[in-house]
Amino acid sequence: MKNFFEPHSIAVVGVSRNPNKVGHVIFKNLIEGGFAGDVIPINPETSQILNYKVYSSITKVSKKIDLAIIAVPANVVLKVVKECNHVNVKNLLIVSAGFGEIGNKKLEDELRNYLNENKMSAIGVNCLGIYDAYHNLDALFIPRYRLRRPKPGGISFVCQSGAIGAAILDKATEEHHTFSKFISYGNATDIDESDLLEYLAEDKHTNVICLYIEGIKDGEKFFNTLKKVSKIKPIVAIKGGLTEQGGKAVLSHTGALAGKKEVYLGIFKQTGVIYAESLEEMFDVASLLEKGVACKGNRVQIITNGGGYGILSTDAISSAHNLVLASLSSETASNLKKAFPPTVSVHNPLDLVGDATTERYKIALEACSKDDGIDAILLIVLYQTPLITTDIVEVIGEMHRETKKPIVVVSTGGEFTQNLSYSLADSGLPTFSYPENAVKALDKLAWYEQKKRVL
Amino acid sequence: MKNFFEPHSIAVVGVSRNPNKVGHVIFKNLIEGGFAGDVIPINPETSQILNYKVYSSITKVSKKIDLAIIAVPANVVLKVVKECNHVNVKNLLIVSAGFGEIGNKKLEDELRNYLNENKMSAIGVNCLGIYDAYHNLDALFIPRYRLRRPKPGGISFVCQSGAIGAAILDKATEEHHTFSKFISYGNATDIDESDLLEYLAEDKHTNVICLYIEGIKDGEKFFNTLKKVSKIKPIVAIKGGLTEQGGKAVLSHTGALAGKKEVYLGIFKQTGVIYAESLEEMFDVASLLEKGVACKGNRVQIITNGGGYGILSTDAISSAHNLVLASLSSETASNLKKAFPPTVSVHNPLDLVGDATTERYKIALEACSKDDGIDAILLIVLYQTPLITTDIVEVIGEMHRETKKPIVVVSTGGEFTQNLSYSLADSGLPTFSYPENAVKALDKLAWYEQKKRVL
Repeated sequence: MKNFFEPHSIAVVGVSRNPNKVGHVIFKNLIEGGFAGDVIPINPETSQILNYKVYSSITKVSKKIDLAIIAVPANVVLKVVKECNHVNVKNLLIVSAGFGEIGNKKLEDELRNYLNENKMSAIGVNCLGIYDAYHNLDALFIPRYRLRRPKPGGISFVCQSGAIGAAILDKATEEHHTFSKFISYGNATDIDESDLLEYLAEDKHTNVICLYIEGIKDGEKFFNTLKKVSKIKPIVAIKGGLTEQGGKAVLSHTGALAGKKEVYLGIFKQTGVIYAESLEEMFDVASLLEKGVACKGNRVQIITNGGGYGILSTDAISSAHNLVLASLSSETASNLKKAFPPTVSVHNPLDLVGDATTERYKIALEACSKDDGIDAILLIVLYQTPLITTDIVEVIGEMHRETKKPIVVVSTGGEFTQNLSYSLADSGLPTFSYPENAVKALDKLAWYEQKKRVL
Repeated sequence: MKNFFEPHSIAVVGVSRNPNKVGHVIFKNLIEGGFAGDVIPINPETSQILNYKVYSSITKVSKKIDLAIIAVPANVVLKVVKECNHVNVKNLLIVSAGFGEIGNKKLEDELRNYLNENKMSAIGVNCLGIYDAYHNLDALFIPRYRLRRPKPGGISFVCQSGAIGAAILDKATEEHHTFSKFISYGNATDIDESDLLEYLAEDKHTNVICLYIEGIKDGEKFFNTLKKVSKIKPIVAIKGGLTEQGGKAVLSHTGALAGKKEVYLGIFKQTGVIYAESLEEMFDVASLLEKGVACKGNRVQIITNGGGYGILSTDAISSAHNLVLASLSSETASNLKKAFPPTVSVHNPLDLVGDATTERYKIALEACSKDDGIDAILLIVLYQTPLITTDIVEVIGEMHRETKKPIVVVSTGGEFTQNLSYSLADSGLPTFSYPENAVKALDKLAWYEQKKRVL
């Protein structure tokens, strides 16, 4: 699998001169993405593209090729695959569409058989490509100005749907989330989700695996892989086609059978996979795990400068299945009462009230990080109140480096707020716009931590 | 009530020379907000602030004052109120804190009695202030650089918590939502949520009322008001302190009794109030109603260029309580099949696939807007795909103006996507980042439309 993500040389078969065509876009992205190895364009009808010498066939390339990316029409794919095999190029990323998903099962079966018989490995067909942030490998067929690429970090995303992958990747980048790998695997003609999960379990950069699936062909393999991988890395999964009508839509999308809702939810529960009910929730849980946050227990202390936010967070934690409200130790409470004016409410929520200063936050954070009765801190900072100075992000960042307890930050607002939140995200803190989303994500993380112990 | 939102002259009592103090901030905001009438600062200890002549007392002002904003310490408030009464200023916005919420019930009762006996009206105490976008009335005590003010539009927000109000207002502005009025009413010493709802029911600019409450003093009045107002305007409500522990937090915040969850949910259901389970959901439903969108029925057609998004939306609609998937009429289906290549899936979801062009969207939108079997269109546009041109926002905007069916747009992505979404929002279309959120909001709207008919 290493040849897919850390190749030294790549051939792109089907690089059109037309800059809107898939092969051309991928070729350009590999170059603009700063890929360090050789990138060789293949096209029998031209001799030069973007100042690169074009080869008429992969069989004409004398250099050793680690990965061939195939972007030719479906009916030509098998011919190209055979040429690759002929020159011993065994790793293929096939982005071409037009197979099982539009009824051409026979063509796809023929391709699969050839790959298997010749011990070749392929990601695809009918996929968007792959991206590896640590190796500057940008083999996605969407222009970089339409879909921004994330910086290196802890999320890896295995996605059966190209469009979902692209959209989420773009939004995640905007919100300063960081990725190790993104893999759109389409019809899973050869390499499937289970193979990718196994590989990511061992990827040192991956802290959390996001998974969007529509249909699974080998259920037993999938079950066993999830169980094995969950013990090593958290998996957050979302399943398309869980309803009867959604299942019908799956059939016409990736040609897969969607399967029953109860079956999938049962599998996820048994194997310790975090089930996300929406794309946003998948994203929320992943951003909590992205920086390697682990939660040793389930007792959450709320610190806030907005009373209403404290109340809504209390409601959310009380209603969560796997979280409880922490109680400040009598020592912590007595110290905080001495340090704060009487308007501050020293309980849970710890309400620093509307005239809270950065200093007040510092005292509260220090006390809570030392209190053994607290496992995680839900830190609400509303930057709209006038006495908060922007250096609060440094105070929070410092505390995050010093304590082993997760600090989850909630701030709602416009540009001023967003910039401060991004700054905290860049320092490694999970940040949220709404308290309910943060608590829901923490709840799922707490479930995973409990489950992991008994897997 | 009109004097609160459309005053010709305002006195601000307690305008400090210190620019961080509440009275100073409000005074400055009124001026910078472009308020057209007179703004008169009151402070016995100085003669000039920001080039305005300062009066030592409201009793020294000879002009007629429609609204007095009081920002003095709690123990001085009653004295100032009496002076206002003395010069026949009967409408007061009292932002000062330090009453019932910190145990000073007696002081608040005294104030309330005086107001009642002298037929004065007050919003507050312990509140953030009010904002009216149509009358350039910015009487909020948060600087404008920390909390951006929304443009005139259809949302009015009645909020017992100042911090929640400020944070949501700021975020909503960032996302191009538009407001009529924002009212933080704090302890509801005199004017309460019911009085404000009654007023907003008749406000011609308000299309939807958002309500955040923690505790209600007069339950019967509240119930009757909700029932009456719901028939005229949709209300989206969120209630802080629905759990036992959340209720305790309410007590120390606004000094109110939170009440039982079942009671509130029952009241909302009976009176046709849309209950929001989170701040984000309140926001989502409100943005659907902001532009006056009404949904005549519950049959939703999905149009998408991402198969996975179509599937997740199908799942969400199938799982919703008040929505069903529309069926294309045989005429629509046959016309679309003629117009599109065979890769396009002419069903629900109508999947225009990854090479969808702006033209393909135009044909799909026109056909669906003419089909009588469709009540609303969930339009998924993922701008990451290469053949979509940016003029698609004009095509969608034009269709929105021509059809009476709601078109709800879902696009996920970074800056490129966001700018196009904002452009659509400015043309009056509701836009969402995730399909599940859009469907959930539509589901709540459909519930309201059904309920309204039998209220």
